Amino acid sequence: MSDTAETIEGEKDQLTDRIVAMILDAVEARDTTALDEILSPLHAADIADLLEQIDDRDRRDLLRLWSHGVDGDVLSELDEALREDVIAALPADALAFAVRDLESDDVVDLVEDMDSDRQEAVLDALEAPDRVAVETALSYPEESAGRLMQVEVVRAPVHWTVGETIDYLRSHDDLPGQFYHVVLVDPRMKPEGYVALGRLLGAPRAARLTDLTEGSFRTFRVDQDEEDVAYAFNQYHLISAPVVDADDRLVGIITIDDAMAVLDEEHEEDILRLAGVGEGSLADRVIATTRRRLPWLAVNLVTAILASLVIALFEDVIAGLVALAVLMPIVASMGGNAGTQSLTVAVRAIATKDLTGANVLRVIRREMLVGVVNGMIFAVVMGGIGWAWFGEPLLGAVIAIAMVINLVVAGLAGTVVPIALDRLGIDPALASGAFVTTVTDVVGFFAFLGLAAVVLL
Amino acid sequence: MSDTAETIEGEKDQLTDRIVAMILDAVEARDTTALDEILSPLHAADIADLLEQIDDRDRRDLLRLWSHGVDGDVLSELDEALREDVIAALPADALAFAVRDLESDDVVDLVEDMDSDRQEAVLDALEAPDRVAVETALSYPEESAGRLMQVEVVRAPVHWTVGETIDYLRSHDDLPGQFYHVVLVDPRMKPEGYVALGRLLGAPRAARLTDLTEGSFRTFRVDQDEEDVAYAFNQYHLISAPVVDADDRLVGIITIDDAMAVLDEEHEEDILRLAGVGEGSLADRVIATTRRRLPWLAVNLVTAILASLVIALFEDVIAGLVALAVLMPIVASMGGNAGTQSLTVAVRAIATKDLTGANVLRVIRREMLVGVVNGMIFAVVMGGIGWAWFGEPLLGAVIAIAMVINLVVAGLAGTVVPIALDRLGIDPALASGAFVTTVTDVVGFFAFLGLAAVVLL
Repeated sequence: MSDTAETIEGEKDQLTDRIVAMILDAVEARDTTALDEILSPLHAADIADLLEQIDDRDRRDLLRLWSHGVDGDVLSELDEALREDVIAALPADALAFAVRDLESDDVVDLVEDMDSDRQEAVLDALEAPDRVAVETALSYPEESAGRLMQVEVVRAPVHWTVGETIDYLRSHDDLPGQFYHVVLVDPRMKPEGYVALGRLLGAPRAARLTDLTEGSFRTFRVDQDEEDVAYAFNQYHLISAPVVDADDRLVGIITIDDAMAVLDEEHEEDILRLAGVGEGSLADRVIATTRRRLPWLAVNLVTAILASLVIALFEDVIAGLVALAVLMPIVASMGGNAGTQSLTVAVRAIATKDLTGANVLRVIRREMLVGVVNGMIFAVVMGGIGWAWFGEPLLGAVIAIAMVINLVVAGLAGTVVPIALDRLGIDPALASGAFVTTVTDVVGFFAFLGLAAVVLL
Repeated sequence: MSDTAETIEGEKDQLTDRIVAMILDAVEARDTTALDEILSPLHAADIADLLEQIDDRDRRDLLRLWSHGVDGDVLSELDEALREDVIAALPADALAFAVRDLESDDVVDLVEDMDSDRQEAVLDALEAPDRVAVETALSYPEESAGRLMQVEVVRAPVHWTVGETIDYLRSHDDLPGQFYHVVLVDPRMKPEGYVALGRLLGAPRAARLTDLTEGSFRTFRVDQDEEDVAYAFNQYHLISAPVVDADDRLVGIITIDDAMAVLDEEHEEDILRLAGVGEGSLADRVIATTRRRLPWLAVNLVTAILASLVIALFEDVIAGLVALAVLMPIVASMGGNAGTQSLTVAVRAIATKDLTGANVLRVIRREMLVGVVNGMIFAVVMGGIGWAWFGEPLLGAVIAIAMVINLVVAGLAGTVVPIALDRLGIDPALASGAFVTTVTDVVGFFAFLGLAAVVLL
């Protein structure tokens, strides 16, 4: 075993910085033997990560030297921002070789966002039945169960025994790479239940499949939203679930790894949307990233200008007491933070279906009460600081009262805004932040400066 | 079939508001027959959600009327904030009945956060071997693979054939409820590989297990962090993976549903931490929620006061031109938003291991360039607005330049702060926000007011 191979052996689970450096050295030296030795033991997901982390030039060079190593799994794992580049860099035969090995759902995932020319090139590489399966899947709506499922399903007639099923499985050498259940179908292909492979293995040959079915069985419709599918997998601990068409006939099966990927994407989307970052990835370029973040900053600019208009109403008041300009951002900032806390909790609770008609009033009341309590605590603290800093007890009183008002409003807006957006069919993760901070900025400045105008001048 | 049962049939997948209302009516009427009819067909996860959504009094009444329906699965699904309350409300025999049915990993999850008295009560309800398994698991560090695994593993000696394995499985009636692989072990119990049940079923009886093993095989150490386990399951599409002790002996197995739950928690934790909300749930009470959010607001207060100190440096400048007080929050707010965008992307990229030594400099450069481009765009917009609003071109120029400076700094701080925190072993999701907004507030006010002092007065 060479030194290189030994190193890889010890670190095989991770794509460490050291391994990346070794790969880049091998690319630099055009040493295909070393490349093979380092890359071959790596998992497709790690090779995809590697391709995402190195820069454009290194990636081109690597693909030129090692195109035979980029199989379908690597393409599947690749970030969409890079996938088209990598596919374009592959020779036609390498591409055909790569995609033939994939299950139908992985091919769908691979080609669904491609322009039609490139999509055609990939589909041409498939054998006829696989091509039909992929094209059928592409006919279902985007982000539906139909796009997520694989058409390779292991099924058995409801009247079969364990023995018949095992004999059938042994006589087929084209079983799917991974499957966890045998789906029982009636003569019209309607799924009636499923049997976990573990139960099949533990039962005598004479046992009837219908006596071994599991209570967890549930089916999805091809046109159902993938988000609902992922929610159900997570909520009901499903491992696989059949997909049926409008006539209740079995057309495919969704497995947990696909549901897990959707859940992961939904989470990621929520986090990024809450932060005002559109979808996208680390592999995107400056222009793409700039363009995606600009609209959110533009919304924020409008929000900030609205807040400034409120301040402008009180220019005379500020001119009379500049200390107000020093203290006013504190009230707005505390309100913005408290509002973000409430809205994040609400957005997550809506996503996980924990916030419903049954508890919505209780949650709103709780958030407002939390605002009252925290508002009073910080009113005392900040009132004291304001007084001590500027030697004016009334200034302390003004900031204290404004603080309580803004934190209660923050709790209210932080809960009501996402709920209202959700009822209107708008993703609350997307738009709540802008609304809530507008409210807390406007209320914060207005309460503080307005009270100051009344009390201090 | 009664009307009630028919309704449930049609909606059985969801815990709709209507079903919740029907349940509450039945609780009110103390109608245990109706309760049974509505609740029995519901999945344990939905019953747990129901218990979380109704208020304290209804929950107590429901548990009194229907304690026999709360099985181990319902307890497992319950939010931790409520679990102890519900367990306390159950009669001892109902509790014993509930926990005996669970796999060892679920019992561990159930009791690990209980105080020792209550833990003892649950452990007493278990049979001796199960109790030992749970106590062993509790001896492993919190959030480790050892806590996550179940000890019920289906294993076979490496030299076995498919036929021997199937005969063995048929002769055992205590197979785990769910299992997806048969783990091959050598005579010293070291796992050597695993065979997916699908392959086992498709192979002839004479086939050797060693010829059917899968390339995806990898093991975890009992003391490995559960976060690493979840990452590996997601990255390498694992369904189950054996867990070994310090001597490489097989001690348990982790399945994808457990890994999925960890991934889900990690995500949730990241979102909540980014928003400055500690862990917690919708079921928490006002005081618990207030206490958890207070520290974050306190950190924000310190940040806001720091920014105010910067403003205070320029009191004379503001007194000379009150328009500065009107415009200054805009610069700070835009910087805060851009910084949050960068830091969220960085925090996620660190969590998914996409941001590494190989691309860190490229990512920092990209974020700064995005700041330059967006900064210049908003400089032009806001410069124009500032000029038009206050009729002073130099004021427009000052806000424009401050905008570019603050957005570049936001991109830099938004990337460097999370990376630095991560290298220091601090969760970047937890602390990045406070640092980055401090930087953008301080730089925003300082650049804007400082430039104004030089240029305008």
